Amino acid sequence: MSEIETRLESLGITLPEAPKPLGNFAPYLIDGEFLYISGQISVDLGGNIHRGKLGETVSLEQGQVAAKWCAVGLLARAKAALGTLDRVEKLIKLGAFVNAIPDFIDHPKVVNGASDFFVEVLGPEKANHVRFAVGSSSLPAGAAVEIEAVFRIQV
Amino acid sequence: MSEIETRLESLGITLPEAPKPLGNFAPYLIDGEFLYISGQISVDLGGNIHRGKLGETVSLEQGQVAAKWCAVGLLARAKAALGTLDRVEKLIKLGAFVNAIPDFIDHPKVVNGASDFFVEVLGPEKANHVRFAVGSSSLPAGAAVEIEAVFRIQV
Amino acid sequence: MSEIETRLESLGITLPEAPKPLGNFAPYLIDGEFLYISGQISVDLGGNIHRGKLGETVSLEQGQVAAKWCAVGLLARAKAALGTLDRVEKLIKLGAFVNAIPDFIDHPKVVNGASDFFVEVLGPEKANHVRFAVGSSSLPAGAAVEIEAVFRIQV
Repeated sequence: MSEIETRLESLGITLPEAPKPLGNFAPYLIDGEFLYISGQISVDLGGNIHRGKLGETVSLEQGQVAAKWCAVGLLARAKAALGTLDRVEKLIKLGAFVNAIPDFIDHPKVVNGASDFFVEVLGPEKANHVRFAVGSSSLPAGAAVEIEAVFRIQV
Repeated sequence: MSEIETRLESLGITLPEAPKPLGNFAPYLIDGEFLYISGQISVDLGGNIHRGKLGETVSLEQGQVAAKWCAVGLLARAKAALGTLDRVEKLIKLGAFVNAIPDFIDHPKVVNGASDFFVEVLGPEKANHVRFAVGSSSLPAGAAVEIEAVFRIQV
Repeated sequence: MSEIETRLESLGITLPEAPKPLGNFAPYLIDGEFLYISGQISVDLGGNIHRGKLGETVSLEQGQVAAKWCAVGLLARAKAALGTLDRVEKLIKLGAFVNAIPDFIDHPKVVNGASDFFVEVLGPEKANHVRFAVGSSSLPAGAAVEIEAVFRIQV
């Protein structure tokens, strides 16, 4: 088992099958040294979509959990793409959309649920990424969070 | 005529002049093996902007048509950048923003209007792309959809 | 002093310390010939966040100023990453999110506040970039604008 998957196991997480896209596109794409992963909504290991809006029906803590499930789904897709997560050299970027009401202002804290998870699993060096975190008035399937990712990989 | 333009013709589409940007930026940019195209709003062959919000004044079917017009505009800009669409090797990524009310949940179906079009025109292999599809509370000129794209190209 | 910083000085702008990220991620990241900069909210030289929504509490002119402060923050981070802005070869892309009410339609004019600034400081050739400009129903800390950037750099 890869080092990264050992860390996942110690966190109680067995990666699910890579979530299928909700449309006519690829869940992931390898181009040269980069792995691009499509926007991943917040779906937990039981297949339940974490729905709702921050500032309304979803608390900050619930939003952070939703963001973590996006990160788990992104890793599940990365494993499906690469065979093993040991081929991940670096998380380059996250693009994060938080389903929120107009008054919400804590998007960074929500998305830390994903960023912190990547640091924990990949280690601080490989996980040191740029990101944007913004509000969306609505997201696919009513999900609370959607995150896309770009990784540098071993070819 | 290129193979791709023959397919476009069979769909009844003659690419328009590349839509001009609504600001002080480039409609497209070639950097090495990549062609980046700026966010393209939903404008049809007659120059009409498809406006409105999904879940309110725009039906799912109308939204899919709007997304298709974004894709047509992206191809028009690609042709302007490359001279011929035969230089397109691969659609890498779409970033799609859907003008929608807070309760809307079918962004993926809307954006399939663009993804399906690319599959039809470029073929399933060249068109196999990653994407995100999210809701925006508002878009430039009140457009229903805005989509940016990255292509891999022959240099 | 670099040519670019001389131009900044003539505009009355001394780059501030690079704004720190509002979460567990990197303010910038160099990968090969590219410099990626995390989403930067509108913060002026005095450290004040320019808050509010376009179409409501923020005028078009105020929004353009807010977008300019995002650009200044992006340059401050670029300088922190590169040592000197002379290593900037090209602004490749801006991804711009405008905090706006559902009826707002002038996102491109707002984001020109950033694009025009880059043209002024980097010159028209280096600053010729692609971008998207969309509406967000909410942004971190209530900021009026958030912009991410990708630059090509001298390695």
